[in-house]
Amino acid sequence: MSAIRQTTSKSLMLFSGRAYPELTDEIAGHLGVTPTPTAAYEFANGELFVRFEESVRGSDAFIVQSHAAPINTWLMEQLLMVDAAKRASAKRITVVAPFFPYARQDKKHRGREPISARLVADMFKTAGADRLMTVDLHTAQIQGFFDGPVDHLFALELLSGYVQERWGDRDITVVSPDSGRVRVSERWSDKLGGKPLAFIHKTRDPMRPNEVVANRVVGEVEGRLCILLDDMIDTGGTIVKAAETLFTAGAADVIVCATHGVLSGPAVDRLKNSQISEVIVTNTLPIQPERRFDKLTVLSIAPLLARAIKEVFEDGSVTSLFGGAS
Amino acid sequence: MSAIRQTTSKSLMLFSGRAYPELTDEIAGHLGVTPTPTAAYEFANGELFVRFEESVRGSDAFIVQSHAAPINTWLMEQLLMVDAAKRASAKRITVVAPFFPYARQDKKHRGREPISARLVADMFKTAGADRLMTVDLHTAQIQGFFDGPVDHLFALELLSGYVQERWGDRDITVVSPDSGRVRVSERWSDKLGGKPLAFIHKTRDPMRPNEVVANRVVGEVEGRLCILLDDMIDTGGTIVKAAETLFTAGAADVIVCATHGVLSGPAVDRLKNSQISEVIVTNTLPIQPERRFDKLTVLSIAPLLARAIKEVFEDGSVTSLFGGAS
Amino acid sequence: MSAIRQTTSKSLMLFSGRAYPELTDEIAGHLGVTPTPTAAYEFANGELFVRFEESVRGSDAFIVQSHAAPINTWLMEQLLMVDAAKRASAKRITVVAPFFPYARQDKKHRGREPISARLVADMFKTAGADRLMTVDLHTAQIQGFFDGPVDHLFALELLSGYVQERWGDRDITVVSPDSGRVRVSERWSDKLGGKPLAFIHKTRDPMRPNEVVANRVVGEVEGRLCILLDDMIDTGGTIVKAAETLFTAGAADVIVCATHGVLSGPAVDRLKNSQISEVIVTNTLPIQPERRFDKLTVLSIAPLLARAIKEVFEDGSVTSLFGGAS
Amino acid sequence: MSAIRQTTSKSLMLFSGRAYPELTDEIAGHLGVTPTPTAAYEFANGELFVRFEESVRGSDAFIVQSHAAPINTWLMEQLLMVDAAKRASAKRITVVAPFFPYARQDKKHRGREPISARLVADMFKTAGADRLMTVDLHTAQIQGFFDGPVDHLFALELLSGYVQERWGDRDITVVSPDSGRVRVSERWSDKLGGKPLAFIHKTRDPMRPNEVVANRVVGEVEGRLCILLDDMIDTGGTIVKAAETLFTAGAADVIVCATHGVLSGPAVDRLKNSQISEVIVTNTLPIQPERRFDKLTVLSIAPLLARAIKEVFEDGSVTSLFGGAS
Amino acid sequence: MSAIRQTTSKSLMLFSGRAYPELTDEIAGHLGVTPTPTAAYEFANGELFVRFEESVRGSDAFIVQSHAAPINTWLMEQLLMVDAAKRASAKRITVVAPFFPYARQDKKHRGREPISARLVADMFKTAGADRLMTVDLHTAQIQGFFDGPVDHLFALELLSGYVQERWGDRDITVVSPDSGRVRVSERWSDKLGGKPLAFIHKTRDPMRPNEVVANRVVGEVEGRLCILLDDMIDTGGTIVKAAETLFTAGAADVIVCATHGVLSGPAVDRLKNSQISEVIVTNTLPIQPERRFDKLTVLSIAPLLARAIKEVFEDGSVTSLFGGAS
Amino acid sequence: MSAIRQTTSKSLMLFSGRAYPELTDEIAGHLGVTPTPTAAYEFANGELFVRFEESVRGSDAFIVQSHAAPINTWLMEQLLMVDAAKRASAKRITVVAPFFPYARQDKKHRGREPISARLVADMFKTAGADRLMTVDLHTAQIQGFFDGPVDHLFALELLSGYVQERWGDRDITVVSPDSGRVRVSERWSDKLGGKPLAFIHKTRDPMRPNEVVANRVVGEVEGRLCILLDDMIDTGGTIVKAAETLFTAGAADVIVCATHGVLSGPAVDRLKNSQISEVIVTNTLPIQPERRFDKLTVLSIAPLLARAIKEVFEDGSVTSLFGGAS
Repeated sequence: MSAIRQTTSKSLMLFSGRAYPELTDEIAGHLGVTPTPTAAYEFANGELFVRFEESVRGSDAFIVQSHAAPINTWLMEQLLMVDAAKRASAKRITVVAPFFPYARQDKKHRGREPISARLVADMFKTAGADRLMTVDLHTAQIQGFFDGPVDHLFALELLSGYVQERWGDRDITVVSPDSGRVRVSERWSDKLGGKPLAFIHKTRDPMRPNEVVANRVVGEVEGRLCILLDDMIDTGGTIVKAAETLFTAGAADVIVCATHGVLSGPAVDRLKNSQISEVIVTNTLPIQPERRFDKLTVLSIAPLLARAIKEVFEDGSVTSLFGGAS
Repeated sequence: MSAIRQTTSKSLMLFSGRAYPELTDEIAGHLGVTPTPTAAYEFANGELFVRFEESVRGSDAFIVQSHAAPINTWLMEQLLMVDAAKRASAKRITVVAPFFPYARQDKKHRGREPISARLVADMFKTAGADRLMTVDLHTAQIQGFFDGPVDHLFALELLSGYVQERWGDRDITVVSPDSGRVRVSERWSDKLGGKPLAFIHKTRDPMRPNEVVANRVVGEVEGRLCILLDDMIDTGGTIVKAAETLFTAGAADVIVCATHGVLSGPAVDRLKNSQISEVIVTNTLPIQPERRFDKLTVLSIAPLLARAIKEVFEDGSVTSLFGGAS
Repeated sequence: MSAIRQTTSKSLMLFSGRAYPELTDEIAGHLGVTPTPTAAYEFANGELFVRFEESVRGSDAFIVQSHAAPINTWLMEQLLMVDAAKRASAKRITVVAPFFPYARQDKKHRGREPISARLVADMFKTAGADRLMTVDLHTAQIQGFFDGPVDHLFALELLSGYVQERWGDRDITVVSPDSGRVRVSERWSDKLGGKPLAFIHKTRDPMRPNEVVANRVVGEVEGRLCILLDDMIDTGGTIVKAAETLFTAGAADVIVCATHGVLSGPAVDRLKNSQISEVIVTNTLPIQPERRFDKLTVLSIAPLLARAIKEVFEDGSVTSLFGGAS
Repeated sequence: MSAIRQTTSKSLMLFSGRAYPELTDEIAGHLGVTPTPTAAYEFANGELFVRFEESVRGSDAFIVQSHAAPINTWLMEQLLMVDAAKRASAKRITVVAPFFPYARQDKKHRGREPISARLVADMFKTAGADRLMTVDLHTAQIQGFFDGPVDHLFALELLSGYVQERWGDRDITVVSPDSGRVRVSERWSDKLGGKPLAFIHKTRDPMRPNEVVANRVVGEVEGRLCILLDDMIDTGGTIVKAAETLFTAGAADVIVCATHGVLSGPAVDRLKNSQISEVIVTNTLPIQPERRFDKLTVLSIAPLLARAIKEVFEDGSVTSLFGGAS
Repeated sequence: MSAIRQTTSKSLMLFSGRAYPELTDEIAGHLGVTPTPTAAYEFANGELFVRFEESVRGSDAFIVQSHAAPINTWLMEQLLMVDAAKRASAKRITVVAPFFPYARQDKKHRGREPISARLVADMFKTAGADRLMTVDLHTAQIQGFFDGPVDHLFALELLSGYVQERWGDRDITVVSPDSGRVRVSERWSDKLGGKPLAFIHKTRDPMRPNEVVANRVVGEVEGRLCILLDDMIDTGGTIVKAAETLFTAGAADVIVCATHGVLSGPAVDRLKNSQISEVIVTNTLPIQPERRFDKLTVLSIAPLLARAIKEVFEDGSVTSLFGGAS
Repeated sequence: MSAIRQTTSKSLMLFSGRAYPELTDEIAGHLGVTPTPTAAYEFANGELFVRFEESVRGSDAFIVQSHAAPINTWLMEQLLMVDAAKRASAKRITVVAPFFPYARQDKKHRGREPISARLVADMFKTAGADRLMTVDLHTAQIQGFFDGPVDHLFALELLSGYVQERWGDRDITVVSPDSGRVRVSERWSDKLGGKPLAFIHKTRDPMRPNEVVANRVVGEVEGRLCILLDDMIDTGGTIVKAAETLFTAGAADVIVCATHGVLSGPAVDRLKNSQISEVIVTNTLPIQPERRFDKLTVLSIAPLLARAIKEVFEDGSVTSLFGGAS
């Protein structure tokens, strides 16, 4: 007989970049595994080095990185981990990027710009990724940038469930901070039982297209609790300005919900000093203790990621999980 | 001396699919060229055949197709033309698709669906396209689906110029028929000098997510001329329903502007019988005489396409042309 | 321990395009499975939509389409199904195309033509197909157009078995309707025990190369039963003309055998009204009841496809199955 | 001003592998260029080395190799030349392979075989070839194996012109040595003004499919001059056997025409000792003086290649040149 | 006539990343061009943005970046510039990376590591680079990591010319600081007229393979001027330790030559405080004024890069320029 | 239920090229399998043909070839085997090339040369190889030429173990025959417990860079047993000259160790007639009986290859096996 035959098995292995190992640990806890020990460090000139301390041959590898600042460093680290896994004969490699880097640059706003989100998707592919898993992409079309399966998870259930419980008895208006994300607000409105919508209309002078002339509220907000929604809070400028516009328009209260708490630069001060009652985010990105503040609520995304990873590994049906659509 | 040396030159060649040769002729007229003679026909079983009747060797080829119904036939014809141009040694091939086919399916709404717009972009690449030129994509992110340069043109200037001239003295509100296209309305508002915005809020029962329960107008429309905007008018159902909602909310008049006049099935009857005052589209798609009606105004997109093709051929700066951004 | 380990299993899933679901049902019956429920429909402008109603994650997917008219629609539908299966994490995707579309355009006959069969093979690859399964390609070289395994099945056994049983006691000559398919006739001759061969020689005027001047029979047909062979019958023009030439040359009887019963346009009338005694095809393509006629015999290709799918799924040896060579 | 601008020019450069430099020299003579000086040798273990002795930067490079024995060596040499030209920044690379290597294995005859001709086409692509130029492919479908333009030239005009002049006053039958190449004979028949066709029918025992039981002539040959056609003469076995069969069937004379004179092993002796009157080939492959014999006529393919190269370089229309179709 | 014809021209455009614009300015000065104005900045979370302020359509684009710390940021910036140039229809894109990032990780030292230099080369390709230009790669094999032309320049002429002039009258030994770079020393030895060689032999305990047990000098250094060579000086640890070993072995003087002055962390202090007489580097990387010190000599690489860019643009022969080999 | 489910299994299959079947047999013996029966032969013109005689569907295929002369033939044969395995649906294909062909040309030494080792790696990929397994690459960077996992095995343990046992009681110096392989000598030195190093310094006249003027020994060799190391012995010229230089410098004895015994042309005579005491190689390449001589010791590499194949098949950890690093 000219062949050796054996039954095949597969093993789920979890890897963590250094940006936010606590998130991977939490996912691992839910799954009942230990993240694979990995050596990772920087050379003096900033070049990164990684090596896995256990064999990954034949594994179903999930490589988790949280793309906080310094974002290019953590992106490169994850790419190197994917390359290492590919060259070490992992059977399948899933990049887990709860906050997809460079998602904002998903088109050319004017000529001679990159489409950075596509470049990032292509870089993951080039390094060896077979699949992507991510949460609340800036636009759902980014799924189409990757040539392979994308598990696009939604924090809607998690965030709206919390809001419903804490603020559900109020007269709510769901508000989009700009004209581009009204669709998402509509989905929240449905989830909360048909609440009214509003959005902030920014007017520009056609002669100076990058300068906002005025902010107007479109929709009914007077005397109501406004839930301001965004996919991410970066410097907080847009969101705080939107809240001010809402208060000027007579809003009774404003709370803010966003999946990704980037919270760069002046964000914490701006939010703390604003009239906003509560800011709710998930931990797709790490939030250092010194950047936490009283009004900030952080919900954990780890259970959702853990369930999705489990379903992917076991070839389960996860549509309900990913549901809520986009 | 071991080489023959000669100065290089290049030649612009224009090719037309059979869906709407009049558009290509019009472009050709603006450019001062003749479309390259092409034999094209169907075998009895529907398989298509194309052959160019002149040498295309070394040419800068622009292959124009208008993706009207039967859309899969015209898409396949264009792919075959690209393949033929590639194998006949064209130097560079630009697919001109004024209405990008399958643009609506630009993401997975739920699990286990294709991302058809990415597939189409990949098919153009596979056949041999180096570049794409198109008008008003359903979402600007589709640019990122193609691995190469995309010239994304905008009909905003053309359409809004017409509206300004004909209706500019009225009290205008710019209206999006749904929550997903408010951004586009905002751009129109700027163009028209800061007009107010409104949109139609569709509420759904969370238990039956595909069923719209009610339509509400968000924003001020009473006594005003509403400009309803969309990228395309297909069966006209959405737009006519939106117009009705606006009238119920007190709108004085409603006009409709859309780049792509698909006008399928009941569209013509619905629009004719509606209270809408005027329907304005461009000719990115052919509109047969029998589907034209009094209230319909069709503006020609050919001058814009001709200018863009000329700039591409001559390596000119076309950002102003493509401007208006997205 | 840092990994979860489990034994792997795989599942065969069968998918059917809408062109000819009865064929998939018949294959499914032989395999003892049910085709995976799939939603598929057209938008008003002809754009297609598909969604699988069950999880296909990790499956060994066989996506069956029968490329009847409207052929570009069914081709696009199958490509969308492949894309959907890829993005839904199917493990392996086999395109089952019993009649390979555009197989006739397998080379450039003259300059500046596409090689459509290669384009189709590349499109299947681009969409995500890992393998192809097909029956009696127009030329066997098309296998080489696809960058991956191709299961090329033959209907020879099925067709010649039927002919042997029904007509085996007659003095048979195996006839090719043109000079390009004499090799196939030779294979039939061997199968039937060494019957004589003949073919129709079409002469052309070198000055007008596309015009046939005369048809001559080369080989012995007088007083014999002629079996006219082709891979497909499209409009029937060639085959009926060939039959007439044979009768003129003294043939006693003519029967026609072809794998693919395209039967476009005037084919049915032509065949019915001819002196041909019997027309034998398989059901790689659907033949609507109204296009069936007395002299037509349709043999089912489903058992062969079912066996091949089973062997592929179980990694069995199928060379004997595919045998008969090409 | 931020750019330096200059008019572009291009230069044709011709490169020769070591298999048959005389052919390249002859082509070069027709073009009025000198082949680019190239160092090429073997290491002691048979590894090849090449280096171009002049800059090839920006050139339109035509790399000519004649795939005689040792065929794998010459194939590898040409691949290395292509790689070197790519890495030295040639602008466009055309592989000129007058006899396409491995063309016979253009499909799987049975299971578990390579499709070698596709592999060779892919290897040229991988090395960096943009285009292919070749003469009389074993089957025209091989054009579709290469992902790019293929200039498929025909020796029909050259060979048939010679035959017409020398033998045109005889009663000619055009004969295919087997059932697979009757189509080519038909094309010759047209060229010679409608001559009759014949072919050799090889019968096999279905139980031993690789063994030919008998050879029968189909078609009229008695008392006539038979022109036996093939794309190549390798060992001459088939062709000499076919000639014998023709004489047995009463042929008056037999001449043999083939594009590619491989003439391996016993070919020369077989042909010399046969009753064949004349053997006509082209010099797509070198024929060493010691393998030449009285009845052998060698026509030069160089003028055709030179004209085709010139047209490709100058973007001329070469369809007439390539004409005769396939 | 169906085409517009015009003579083609091309324009050299130079682009600068933000890591070291002074180098690009210096190159531009030698070429007589101005770097193309480019907007580039970071979002608050570290994501980068770039946009070219002039049309780059049809240009021969050279995109220069100096990969200093923060290296991943500058690498990502260059990739985004390449993507932007590709999508803006540049005709050809050359990445100019005088210090190739991640060159040290050019192989797997042990299992489960990335090959980072290959990943970087692939990322350049993915973004759209057609060519690479670089100086003194860590190992010359990295050229083979990029699928396209690489212009590999050498600083040997520049550095050794300086040394010859300043120190040429001394008794010189050329020294490699470790066993892996003796080949480079040999090339220097030839250049300086056959000077003796030496290297530092590091011994390790086989039980603890990452720990150096002792450094031994192999070769003659007593009473001589030792030129210590490396491709880069990072933290200076290796080089200072090597110098000490040389002094211990009786060296009269030690000078250090390296192409790339990374000079990370403690490098400046280490070198300043050492007995080394002179440290000579080029400016492939920026050296801030505060990191300059008396013994440090910085030679400009700009003239070499400018000459190479000019030759590439003009399709000149640059072998002599790149010469010195590797 | 719409799917058939079954547990998956996999089977290791071993294939042997014809260059050195005895090596595959030996590996097979260690693994307890039989090489898969394979038909392989040459056509008269040198074109190769292969066919596997058993089904390989779904197998984990290891295709072993030993790249001896005629090296291009054996390379092509292996590529054809890979293509055949891919088209026959092998699940995973590992190319086992104990001596990687064309490894010496791993960079451009001067301009306008190929990087042949990269071309070979790409050709394996193009044919369908998923993985590579090889022994002692000429430079470790070649791993990075292949886009996938490479198992790079080392003969160091095998060779140094033998030397230690036979010659370990002598005063050893480890010698590199040129400046480019001192690193490898250092690794041997560590393995043998810290032995001194030396190398041959070849001086060249800068005016005639390809000509060696003189050979000097750098390091201490007088009265010692010198172990001359190389990755391969081709014609033996370098190694015998190095030995002579060592004897001139006072070496007591010289033995030679190399992984790959190419032993081309005059190698055997040179080595036999030299003062070298012993020549030790492995059988990565076949050494015909007539090329064996008394001083030659051949160690078998088969056990190492067998162990590596087993670990790859079973997804075991093989870092220790591959260890010794490079």
